[in-house]
Amino acid sequence: MNRGQVHTGTNDDALSNRYKGELAEFLFGSERFARLFDMSELNGFIAPLTPTGKSSLVPNMPWYYSGTLLTVEYLTDPANVRAILPSDIELADEQPGAVAIIWADWQSCSEGGAELLDPIRSQYLEAFVVVRCKKNGVTYSRCVAIWVTKDFAIARGWFQGYPKKLGSVHVTRVFNHGKATPKLEAGAKLGATLAAYDHRLASAVVTLKGPSESNGFVNGHKMLHSRWMPSITPGAGNSMDQLIAMGGVDADLGQPWYGDAELTLGDSQWDELNSILPVKEILGGYYREVGVTFNGGTLIEDRSQNN
Amino acid sequence: MNRGQVHTGTNDDALSNRYKGELAEFLFGSERFARLFDMSELNGFIAPLTPTGKSSLVPNMPWYYSGTLLTVEYLTDPANVRAILPSDIELADEQPGAVAIIWADWQSCSEGGAELLDPIRSQYLEAFVVVRCKKNGVTYSRCVAIWVTKDFAIARGWFQGYPKKLGSVHVTRVFNHGKATPKLEAGAKLGATLAAYDHRLASAVVTLKGPSESNGFVNGHKMLHSRWMPSITPGAGNSMDQLIAMGGVDADLGQPWYGDAELTLGDSQWDELNSILPVKEILGGYYREVGVTFNGGTLIEDRSQNN
Amino acid sequence: MNRGQVHTGTNDDALSNRYKGELAEFLFGSERFARLFDMSELNGFIAPLTPTGKSSLVPNMPWYYSGTLLTVEYLTDPANVRAILPSDIELADEQPGAVAIIWADWQSCSEGGAELLDPIRSQYLEAFVVVRCKKNGVTYSRCVAIWVTKDFAIARGWFQGYPKKLGSVHVTRVFNHGKATPKLEAGAKLGATLAAYDHRLASAVVTLKGPSESNGFVNGHKMLHSRWMPSITPGAGNSMDQLIAMGGVDADLGQPWYGDAELTLGDSQWDELNSILPVKEILGGYYREVGVTFNGGTLIEDRSQNN
Amino acid sequence: MNRGQVHTGTNDDALSNRYKGELAEFLFGSERFARLFDMSELNGFIAPLTPTGKSSLVPNMPWYYSGTLLTVEYLTDPANVRAILPSDIELADEQPGAVAIIWADWQSCSEGGAELLDPIRSQYLEAFVVVRCKKNGVTYSRCVAIWVTKDFAIARGWFQGYPKKLGSVHVTRVFNHGKATPKLEAGAKLGATLAAYDHRLASAVVTLKGPSESNGFVNGHKMLHSRWMPSITPGAGNSMDQLIAMGGVDADLGQPWYGDAELTLGDSQWDELNSILPVKEILGGYYREVGVTFNGGTLIEDRSQNN
Repeated sequence: MNRGQVHTGTNDDALSNRYKGELAEFLFGSERFARLFDMSELNGFIAPLTPTGKSSLVPNMPWYYSGTLLTVEYLTDPANVRAILPSDIELADEQPGAVAIIWADWQSCSEGGAELLDPIRSQYLEAFVVVRCKKNGVTYSRCVAIWVTKDFAIARGWFQGYPKKLGSVHVTRVFNHGKATPKLEAGAKLGATLAAYDHRLASAVVTLKGPSESNGFVNGHKMLHSRWMPSITPGAGNSMDQLIAMGGVDADLGQPWYGDAELTLGDSQWDELNSILPVKEILGGYYREVGVTFNGGTLIEDRSQNN
Repeated sequence: MNRGQVHTGTNDDALSNRYKGELAEFLFGSERFARLFDMSELNGFIAPLTPTGKSSLVPNMPWYYSGTLLTVEYLTDPANVRAILPSDIELADEQPGAVAIIWADWQSCSEGGAELLDPIRSQYLEAFVVVRCKKNGVTYSRCVAIWVTKDFAIARGWFQGYPKKLGSVHVTRVFNHGKATPKLEAGAKLGATLAAYDHRLASAVVTLKGPSESNGFVNGHKMLHSRWMPSITPGAGNSMDQLIAMGGVDADLGQPWYGDAELTLGDSQWDELNSILPVKEILGGYYREVGVTFNGGTLIEDRSQNN
Repeated sequence: MNRGQVHTGTNDDALSNRYKGELAEFLFGSERFARLFDMSELNGFIAPLTPTGKSSLVPNMPWYYSGTLLTVEYLTDPANVRAILPSDIELADEQPGAVAIIWADWQSCSEGGAELLDPIRSQYLEAFVVVRCKKNGVTYSRCVAIWVTKDFAIARGWFQGYPKKLGSVHVTRVFNHGKATPKLEAGAKLGATLAAYDHRLASAVVTLKGPSESNGFVNGHKMLHSRWMPSITPGAGNSMDQLIAMGGVDADLGQPWYGDAELTLGDSQWDELNSILPVKEILGGYYREVGVTFNGGTLIEDRSQNN
Repeated sequence: MNRGQVHTGTNDDALSNRYKGELAEFLFGSERFARLFDMSELNGFIAPLTPTGKSSLVPNMPWYYSGTLLTVEYLTDPANVRAILPSDIELADEQPGAVAIIWADWQSCSEGGAELLDPIRSQYLEAFVVVRCKKNGVTYSRCVAIWVTKDFAIARGWFQGYPKKLGSVHVTRVFNHGKATPKLEAGAKLGATLAAYDHRLASAVVTLKGPSESNGFVNGHKMLHSRWMPSITPGAGNSMDQLIAMGGVDADLGQPWYGDAELTLGDSQWDELNSILPVKEILGGYYREVGVTFNGGTLIEDRSQNN
């Protein structure tokens, strides 16, 4: 399609599309022609914007998610949690050293579900690390590290305040047939791994023990996230600097299973998963199939400098 | 490393690292303990922030680049350029329908060059589409579509206002030995391709004819870019909305070569390269080895709503 | 550089493994030393062999598979099937122009299941094209083109006579929760795509209509495959040249679903999916969860020249 | 294209391609029609074969290579080299414990060079480990482990007896401009890394000291390689089992540089680089730009069982 013609307002049906633009240029000259388009509108949720909006890396909300979560919860020293929270966000009152590392195996789409039929555009995995914290007396979850496998997931994450990077993320799947799968039953073992820039950062094994009432407690609150963008002028602070709260809606949840967990964290030259939140004591593991919708959040604080 | 200890200020040398945090918790309780860390500082240019700053997806500027540029310049209908410019940015006075599509094969690092020794962290390719435009009487270049191969390049680009996505980008290399390479000589053919989400979006072949004085004219001005982030509140506009200008410094340029070019553009369900800027007439191709430094830009306009 | 050290003998009587080799070399010289190790055995199913066998790209059979199959069956001209069969293999008697293209989403492991806990080593996708044929009066299925996502799958395939290449393969998954998934119900739409070297070669959509008795008929026989390796001497024929038959055992099959199907095939400079087996008429689509085991096959003919 | 028509020998020019096959089927019935094609010939160097031969993962020899080699040579215990050689291959007389690990950054093509214009099909990297050995009194080099980034490189390697796997391979490049590159000068540092299945297996840094006469001595002989394929019948030995010799021809070599080297090897569950050939003493590093042609080799021994 060629948005140029859309805006000419002419009725020159006899002209082939090929010459429409050239006619306009001939009639008005390119500068005057340009002015005709001053009402042009660029569309899309996020870059790049185009007249149709189709090129936007992320379509408009709501965003739908179906997938599985494999969670390992553990205790680190509360001082380690404290050290990766901004100074104006407090530790949680209960279990301030609790951490969850979660592997999510997602299929995701926007309204209409077009992504589902080009599945390379709808499927991705992510591994993310969540702690709890407190702000204005409210307990929140907060993601302090996350790796995903697709660019649209990075873009959505930055909008949501997730500190996303690309990573290589894998988690064992549960099939119903054959011998190359754990079944959803006691004793089933599910593995999960994370690497970034060819460095292994995390490996986990969860051994299921039985159905449980919860899927863990660390990733159980609204998220309190920071969104910021440094000024293009070096040293001039942050053009955008916000604290926002967000969470999923319309949860459609499967039966959670709990189990024992093993977890090994690693560091690299570029990532500090083990050094920022080392494992002091494993609390346990969980597996659950989930569906959820994301449709925005709320601004908690804005300290943007617009510079 | 364990940032917790760094901030305790205690002298308990006899304590193993393992128990330091537990001691602090025992002595003060987690809430009081937390307050001790209120002076904690998070570092890093961009997310994620940590006490050391090492985890930031992008290190501090300046950023250094060494690589090659393969450029194809062509004319599209000026109406097409008009249609992808924001309404308050004008078409360029001269050749308003000129477009450059550029394949860059980069090695890049920050101060100290640590990335160069873990080359997976320093090497990437990008293919990007540039038009010219005018604002406040000044002619600028503007990137309207770009695909890169690494996450750090996406993050740098969003900071710079490049509308970056991930893509699969390839360009023929020039070696000095053997029969599997063009040499830098008349008749040499260099190919270049771009795909995203398994859809081919562009293929080009440049046949070198000789050394030239320029490397093209479309990507020859400072860049005029938009940086914005929608509010986390649906429908509430843009928390950040800026027009910025930027460009490289310290250019260290090789001899450009010009040549003939062939270019095929494509569309997919997710990208509109051919429909937004179709090829009307090929102008030519260029190849050049380049070095450049990026060290920030300047704010032109700020319409952020801080919402 | 100090290379003399190698030839320096040591006198450490308590021989650690670390120094054994040097001692032996000192005592016997490297040639005699070599003979001492004549009983050394290299292990592994396929290259590379090592003393432990752990490095082999493929472990010993049996190999277990759990996953899903999305199948589209169609008719091409029987002449097209004829043209990609070796001259001594006949067309099938019934429906000789029938073709199946199948997307498999696999988790796979060997005895013990170690791969399942490092899931990057157990999960892969493949898209493959199957026709039927006849040899010695027996009807067989035969895979004439196949793309997979992992190297171990390539190696297993070459052993089995599958003409495997790497490709980018995606297929919609069926989850039980949320809005980003088809459910296993009439009207559900599943997409599938295949690309190689950034060229899209196939896209399909299957719309489920109901449970069915079969999962199609084209991929329903034992496979008749060719295994060959050209002589290292140019022009000297094939060192190995075999016709083998093989198939899965211990099938553990889910309920198949049938449906309508759309299919678009493409060619590239490197692949001829559309030109070798173009779609004349779509027969239908199928979806099924399956488990299967592979444990070898039988030699039908050997024409190896051992040259 | 439709190979069916090529073989009909009819003169039905008036028939559209679309109906040719149907006509033949109508006239002869599919079985008789099939017989008409008995002279059909499948072409291609390696699987998959098609009438045109275009789909073959590897085109006919010769194969051309242009690229760079970064080499680290070191000593391991000769017993370790002994342990990964087949029992009928001897250790080399001189320096039997010498090992070279080489990172190659290749552009490669076949006759005509079509791959160069679709550079995703011509570029790849590989990291490989070479030892020396002796057979029938002749000293050979032998590759005992190798990882590459493309499927065509795997296929060529298996033909040549290289025990190829896929890996993630990176090596610092030398550009002539800018600050994000070492220059070809004393003090320049080049890094190189290897990972497979998200496990880091090797990292190296070579610091150049000056031009040198050689590019190392370990990878300096003809290669003595094993090519084998297990019988499809479990336990029935090897259908093909050969010892072959091969090497490049038409070497077009750049000036080698020598330097100091650091090397760290690793193991994973799937690879044993460090345990099979651990570093006892680093000998040095080399960097060289090279061009070479491969055009086959010679059979040394055949023990194929044709079973």
